[in-house]
Amino acid sequence: MKIFTGNANPEFAQKVASHLDIPLGDCEVSRFADGEVQVSIRENVRGSDVFIIQSTSSPVNENYMELFILMDAVKRASAREITLVMPYYGYARQDRKAEPRAPISARCIADLCQVSGAKRLLVVDLHAPQIQGFFNGPVDNLFAFPVMAGAWLEKKKGVQNIVCVSPDTGAVERTRSFAKRIKSPMAIIDKRRDRPNEAKAFHVIGDIKGKTALIVDDMIDTAGTLCVAVDHLIKKGAREVYAVVTHAVFSGPAMERIENSLLKEVWVTDTIPLKKKSEKIHCVSVAPLVAEAMKRIYSKGSVSALFD
Amino acid sequence: MKIFTGNANPEFAQKVASHLDIPLGDCEVSRFADGEVQVSIRENVRGSDVFIIQSTSSPVNENYMELFILMDAVKRASAREITLVMPYYGYARQDRKAEPRAPISARCIADLCQVSGAKRLLVVDLHAPQIQGFFNGPVDNLFAFPVMAGAWLEKKKGVQNIVCVSPDTGAVERTRSFAKRIKSPMAIIDKRRDRPNEAKAFHVIGDIKGKTALIVDDMIDTAGTLCVAVDHLIKKGAREVYAVVTHAVFSGPAMERIENSLLKEVWVTDTIPLKKKSEKIHCVSVAPLVAEAMKRIYSKGSVSALFD
Amino acid sequence: MKIFTGNANPEFAQKVASHLDIPLGDCEVSRFADGEVQVSIRENVRGSDVFIIQSTSSPVNENYMELFILMDAVKRASAREITLVMPYYGYARQDRKAEPRAPISARCIADLCQVSGAKRLLVVDLHAPQIQGFFNGPVDNLFAFPVMAGAWLEKKKGVQNIVCVSPDTGAVERTRSFAKRIKSPMAIIDKRRDRPNEAKAFHVIGDIKGKTALIVDDMIDTAGTLCVAVDHLIKKGAREVYAVVTHAVFSGPAMERIENSLLKEVWVTDTIPLKKKSEKIHCVSVAPLVAEAMKRIYSKGSVSALFD
Amino acid sequence: MKIFTGNANPEFAQKVASHLDIPLGDCEVSRFADGEVQVSIRENVRGSDVFIIQSTSSPVNENYMELFILMDAVKRASAREITLVMPYYGYARQDRKAEPRAPISARCIADLCQVSGAKRLLVVDLHAPQIQGFFNGPVDNLFAFPVMAGAWLEKKKGVQNIVCVSPDTGAVERTRSFAKRIKSPMAIIDKRRDRPNEAKAFHVIGDIKGKTALIVDDMIDTAGTLCVAVDHLIKKGAREVYAVVTHAVFSGPAMERIENSLLKEVWVTDTIPLKKKSEKIHCVSVAPLVAEAMKRIYSKGSVSALFD
Amino acid sequence: MKIFTGNANPEFAQKVASHLDIPLGDCEVSRFADGEVQVSIRENVRGSDVFIIQSTSSPVNENYMELFILMDAVKRASAREITLVMPYYGYARQDRKAEPRAPISARCIADLCQVSGAKRLLVVDLHAPQIQGFFNGPVDNLFAFPVMAGAWLEKKKGVQNIVCVSPDTGAVERTRSFAKRIKSPMAIIDKRRDRPNEAKAFHVIGDIKGKTALIVDDMIDTAGTLCVAVDHLIKKGAREVYAVVTHAVFSGPAMERIENSLLKEVWVTDTIPLKKKSEKIHCVSVAPLVAEAMKRIYSKGSVSALFD
Amino acid sequence: MKIFTGNANPEFAQKVASHLDIPLGDCEVSRFADGEVQVSIRENVRGSDVFIIQSTSSPVNENYMELFILMDAVKRASAREITLVMPYYGYARQDRKAEPRAPISARCIADLCQVSGAKRLLVVDLHAPQIQGFFNGPVDNLFAFPVMAGAWLEKKKGVQNIVCVSPDTGAVERTRSFAKRIKSPMAIIDKRRDRPNEAKAFHVIGDIKGKTALIVDDMIDTAGTLCVAVDHLIKKGAREVYAVVTHAVFSGPAMERIENSLLKEVWVTDTIPLKKKSEKIHCVSVAPLVAEAMKRIYSKGSVSALFD
Repeated sequence: MKIFTGNANPEFAQKVASHLDIPLGDCEVSRFADGEVQVSIRENVRGSDVFIIQSTSSPVNENYMELFILMDAVKRASAREITLVMPYYGYARQDRKAEPRAPISARCIADLCQVSGAKRLLVVDLHAPQIQGFFNGPVDNLFAFPVMAGAWLEKKKGVQNIVCVSPDTGAVERTRSFAKRIKSPMAIIDKRRDRPNEAKAFHVIGDIKGKTALIVDDMIDTAGTLCVAVDHLIKKGAREVYAVVTHAVFSGPAMERIENSLLKEVWVTDTIPLKKKSEKIHCVSVAPLVAEAMKRIYSKGSVSALFD
Repeated sequence: MKIFTGNANPEFAQKVASHLDIPLGDCEVSRFADGEVQVSIRENVRGSDVFIIQSTSSPVNENYMELFILMDAVKRASAREITLVMPYYGYARQDRKAEPRAPISARCIADLCQVSGAKRLLVVDLHAPQIQGFFNGPVDNLFAFPVMAGAWLEKKKGVQNIVCVSPDTGAVERTRSFAKRIKSPMAIIDKRRDRPNEAKAFHVIGDIKGKTALIVDDMIDTAGTLCVAVDHLIKKGAREVYAVVTHAVFSGPAMERIENSLLKEVWVTDTIPLKKKSEKIHCVSVAPLVAEAMKRIYSKGSVSALFD
Repeated sequence: MKIFTGNANPEFAQKVASHLDIPLGDCEVSRFADGEVQVSIRENVRGSDVFIIQSTSSPVNENYMELFILMDAVKRASAREITLVMPYYGYARQDRKAEPRAPISARCIADLCQVSGAKRLLVVDLHAPQIQGFFNGPVDNLFAFPVMAGAWLEKKKGVQNIVCVSPDTGAVERTRSFAKRIKSPMAIIDKRRDRPNEAKAFHVIGDIKGKTALIVDDMIDTAGTLCVAVDHLIKKGAREVYAVVTHAVFSGPAMERIENSLLKEVWVTDTIPLKKKSEKIHCVSVAPLVAEAMKRIYSKGSVSALFD
Repeated sequence: MKIFTGNANPEFAQKVASHLDIPLGDCEVSRFADGEVQVSIRENVRGSDVFIIQSTSSPVNENYMELFILMDAVKRASAREITLVMPYYGYARQDRKAEPRAPISARCIADLCQVSGAKRLLVVDLHAPQIQGFFNGPVDNLFAFPVMAGAWLEKKKGVQNIVCVSPDTGAVERTRSFAKRIKSPMAIIDKRRDRPNEAKAFHVIGDIKGKTALIVDDMIDTAGTLCVAVDHLIKKGAREVYAVVTHAVFSGPAMERIENSLLKEVWVTDTIPLKKKSEKIHCVSVAPLVAEAMKRIYSKGSVSALFD
Repeated sequence: MKIFTGNANPEFAQKVASHLDIPLGDCEVSRFADGEVQVSIRENVRGSDVFIIQSTSSPVNENYMELFILMDAVKRASAREITLVMPYYGYARQDRKAEPRAPISARCIADLCQVSGAKRLLVVDLHAPQIQGFFNGPVDNLFAFPVMAGAWLEKKKGVQNIVCVSPDTGAVERTRSFAKRIKSPMAIIDKRRDRPNEAKAFHVIGDIKGKTALIVDDMIDTAGTLCVAVDHLIKKGAREVYAVVTHAVFSGPAMERIENSLLKEVWVTDTIPLKKKSEKIHCVSVAPLVAEAMKRIYSKGSVSALFD
Repeated sequence: MKIFTGNANPEFAQKVASHLDIPLGDCEVSRFADGEVQVSIRENVRGSDVFIIQSTSSPVNENYMELFILMDAVKRASAREITLVMPYYGYARQDRKAEPRAPISARCIADLCQVSGAKRLLVVDLHAPQIQGFFNGPVDNLFAFPVMAGAWLEKKKGVQNIVCVSPDTGAVERTRSFAKRIKSPMAIIDKRRDRPNEAKAFHVIGDIKGKTALIVDDMIDTAGTLCVAVDHLIKKGAREVYAVVTHAVFSGPAMERIENSLLKEVWVTDTIPLKKKSEKIHCVSVAPLVAEAMKRIYSKGSVSALFD
């Protein structure tokens, strides 16, 4: 068993390796002068079960290209099998033809990973669970919410009268899953343009008055919609607002917006490295979970036993 | 352009052919004495663009096997290209590993269709839009809701004070889409076991009191959950309850349950043939929509222009 | 090594497992309300060599669909390799384009099995040995005739003056193979329409007068042709008539026809479960043969050593 | 439509081209000094439907390698589609695992042809019709017997009292097909070692006494078995013996043996070029049949209409 | 015929489109906030022959990812065929395992392009011609040197006594090709460490004294080696030094180094957009050549006729 | 670990087996009467790592067909993995489209080998290192020059004042590699037609006067160009001329030409069997190198460690 990583999230890879008590493989992924990915694997991998850890967060295209070329190198170096560990699966949101002639990038990515050498996939909280079916081989989709809910219940025992809020109709199932774990009711935000040429109206379906609202989602991207939602929830009577998400994408002005918002805290995991520290951001590590899954994959144990 | 059909829904195929003003291809799909599928194609298909229409509703396994073998025959008979028209895509609900070691049957099916010869897919209201990504070639996923909402608005102009209700957290996006088209608000049912060893409690998120509730979903299977929901909605104050779904799967006791329920009407399409007539069932045909899409596929016109 | 089975012939799977002295895998293959196959694998298969036993006899389409979906589940559950054990290979008779635009269903099936996950195939008495070449991986085609001839010679020592009869020109090689094993001569039935608008005449090439005729074939389907042949053989002077076939397909009126015919006995194997008992049917088990082959596949021993 | 040929049977290719009234494509297939195949295509093939005619008779390995490399050149030169025309399909007899660890060369060949660029196959009298299923795309298997039987009936009107004889149990179906066309009865030769350490005994099943025997098969290879059969048939009372086969493989001493045998005439086709003339060999051309099939493939007409 | 382009070299795409007298397709390739590629194709492409022009120069990884996702969109939008036009093929230098466990990125890229939808490739001056064989379909590798040599001979008629110099042993064939076109002799630079711990010595094989040296290569990357070579050539007696290369990669300090060097002029093409203008850089456009090749591909004319 | 070989170079296979101290596998590759390859594997290979040694030198087409069919047999006999050992890779020189509509035979061959069952490739001194990228799996390309240079330095210590000469511009890199190992300078031959209708002039770039010239290349084919080069080198003042090449292709008149030339000695390896002995030919065995690489592949050791 050997673990290699690109440059997407080396701290995470290091945490996983430490949990497994094996060193990271001796491999450097760098750039030639013209920006092409250069891979130097400095130890023999012939016949090994190789795990490649790479979160494909921003810079997403650089990270994917690193991945393809690193896997090509490992495959041609005669590794026995490559398991691709992508704690964050970039392009997961392009998972259908949302508009005419749109790509299904998430499937395209799955094909590119397979043709480059990935035989098995280990991911955390896929944006849509159907993405498992984009890959032709085994996929283990780990859930971060048991870990996050556990941490929340431990740290925030005192917080009462909670309602989990889905920020749109797409995150309802996810919100329900978290709500069940912390035994709270739920509400849903439904933004809709009621009449042409009007601004979108902000409806909250369900009861939030006087409650602590937990906005639940799989990721925060620019935090734009999130912060608008926070304002509205407060306006509509929520006492305070938290956010709980797995993937801290945090594009562009996200951090600034969060800092300036009424959000009390934002709970995230470490699938994506945080570019900036913030008092408001609370990070729960899923590295032990990923490490344990890798151990079971390697030793042919049951990964699903980890799901509860 | 030639159209062939198996035995799943020959009336639908005939309606489509009539709309296109071309006869159905001369082809018989029958059974040998031992139950094996027998295919007799009685006209030349060399170089043709062949459309095979087959809804893979019950008997789903028979219908799929007909499809695979019919496509093999057409492929080996030198058709130029096979477009598979599946108004109802059977096995669509097994679209992820819902439990440990579950199959992803919807992906498996996509692979089987492709290996048998399908190069392109035309479907109506896929259970999950991500299933488009299970197929490697072009997929056109037609929406039945514009047609159904149009028919509703025409027939039910008088019905006021409507709320569209999602029967669970999985159908929220679909419900929202219908609600927007008929400009109604929405509500969501959230069944949950609040304490171990208790029955699941039935929560309605959103306001239904005194309203006409339209339960919206992509299909009705056994109608069990649906009829329970109807009872609860009425109990919680809904004035009357309709159901609007695309695919009339209607397994086992479905028809009987619907007949015996408080449901006022159930609106469905003809993607699946109805086994029994019922006063309560209102069927809107999507055959013209499917026919128009086939015409555009054949003549290289834009299918997406049909989406609105 | 793990063995799973669908619902085609669970008794056979159980016999094989008993011979191997390992329990059948904990797996349930059932149906959802709408008839879709539901697979529940209740034990870890990660890294295992999985053998799936499924005879694809009637209901052939149900049995194949069970197989595809079961294999998909096992593959995605990270089994090391799937060996598909099909004692009876359904659709084997559609092994060529017998008529214009006919499917080659037996090849189509081979592709479907492979795309679903089968890496290796173990079968008994393929209808045509060329079907081995339809599959891209290793195929072991076991012969039932050594077992059957052995059983015959043991039980029927007293029967003298035997002639093995091929019921048509397609079964001649098979008949010869059995005839050699029991050291008997052979004859061939050649039905032919001598003049247009006449019934087919029934010619026997070879000598059967006063002899015990053994009609040899790989399967009995409806038993129609067989029973006509029996009548003619008796008419043309055969003293008594037996039939020896591997696969007891027995469609439609087969059992009844056999009961009512002049056939003395019909010898079959247990590759297909018998739906009805009959005094005339003598069943020789090939489960020990299949079990031994599986053991050798698993332990990398020679399977061909089993052929004599 | 363009036709290219290698060096296997250029006369045949020329005959076909003449029938189609188009010139053979300007292409030279030669050898480099070290024996490697050199291909020079001297005309543009971009977007063309290319037919490559190559019988893979002796030197079979040279002919196949010419084929693979010629198809690679045509494919990379952007032909629209390659139809491979193999009047004789070499390696067809290795169509199953006849012995432990034997190759299935006929399937291997089909794969090699496809990977080199063949999309469609046109053949004459495949050794086993199942070989159609070895190829993934459309296969048209033309029958030479209607042409040969027609020629026979025209030339040999006077020959009466004919019996068609299958030289072994493998050629029975083929013999029956010819016998039906010339309305003759049939007989079968069954060679068998009756006791260990004895020579194989030569049994004739069916009546040949005083008759003109026509030995029917798909090919003559070394003519060894054939000539032994002739002797035995004469000894057992046949009046005279002819042979009717499609493919004149004629390896090693075949011609000499035929010359020296009691065979009256050997009827063959021109799928394989004759290396030597002989008074005894009567050749019926199937070039018009092949040309007509190619015309229909090109113009999308029905090829099966040619079968009768 | 439709032409789309990403953001790699839109000026080049525009020049090509102008030569062909058709507008660029209406398509926007942009970025989502998190850096993921967003593709909007605003016109129908169903059934079209789509040409995608994208030079994969720096930012190479961004440009490749744009390409993959753009091709996925076009493929799923039912284009008839995608021809990928890559005037500069990024990663071409990683075309072999140069070191243990190195990737063969150029092959990996070819696979990724094909799996994303490319059926045909049009390139200019591949770093190694063998890269044609990395792609499974047709590849047209255009030569820029006829165009460049023509331009040189026209503009530089007065320059006499030229020697073409290969900057290392890898560019000798390319240098010879240019030298032949302008009828000049050639020389080769061979840098080598003569003794351990010594600097590499700079040998010139061939005669350069008093001559105008033209350093010929397929690309200039950082210009480091090039500028050192210029100094040495001057030191060893060359009268003046030019450079002639196809691809102006110009990484990092390349432009600055060229400006500060003794190089008289650098001749390049427009396969890669120049980031900065410079008096020393002379750019010859290959857009007319690429446009003409595309026209012939579309109209099925001979592309090779363009090679001289 | 099992080693099989065809008939290309059985002595080499035997030497390798002896080095590894394991017997050659019990397998006969012969011919049927009609020239088709016949394979008899007489020992169990189920689950084995099989190495197939076959140099694809002349008769190249026979040798490749042996290889494809032997691999098919091994694959279908359930070998775990096939490593193809081709000390000489036939067709390597057709590695690009050298002329319009030329095949890329070296890629075609790679595909044929893979489809027949090869998973890994072990070769010696590929004609172009890019051919590694034609194969989809791991390729180990061993270098013969360290072995040959070692032998030279040992045997020819006394020879001074050496210059390594590349016989054309294509062998410069290879020549440089050998020159570095024996610490000699280098020169290059550049044949070129200076004016139309003139013979090609023979230019030597670099200094050879009074020196011992070593012509370095990867192979000698007909020795035509080589012997002309020898004459010219002597004429231009070289004191004596040797040739050092890896692969002794020696087609047609090669041996005779060498015998009659002024060449002092020709150094080759045993990748190709010599058909005739000659005093001038000095053969260095690479069997120990190949054996060591196979050992490391089997035991998952580093092969690249062998490169120096």
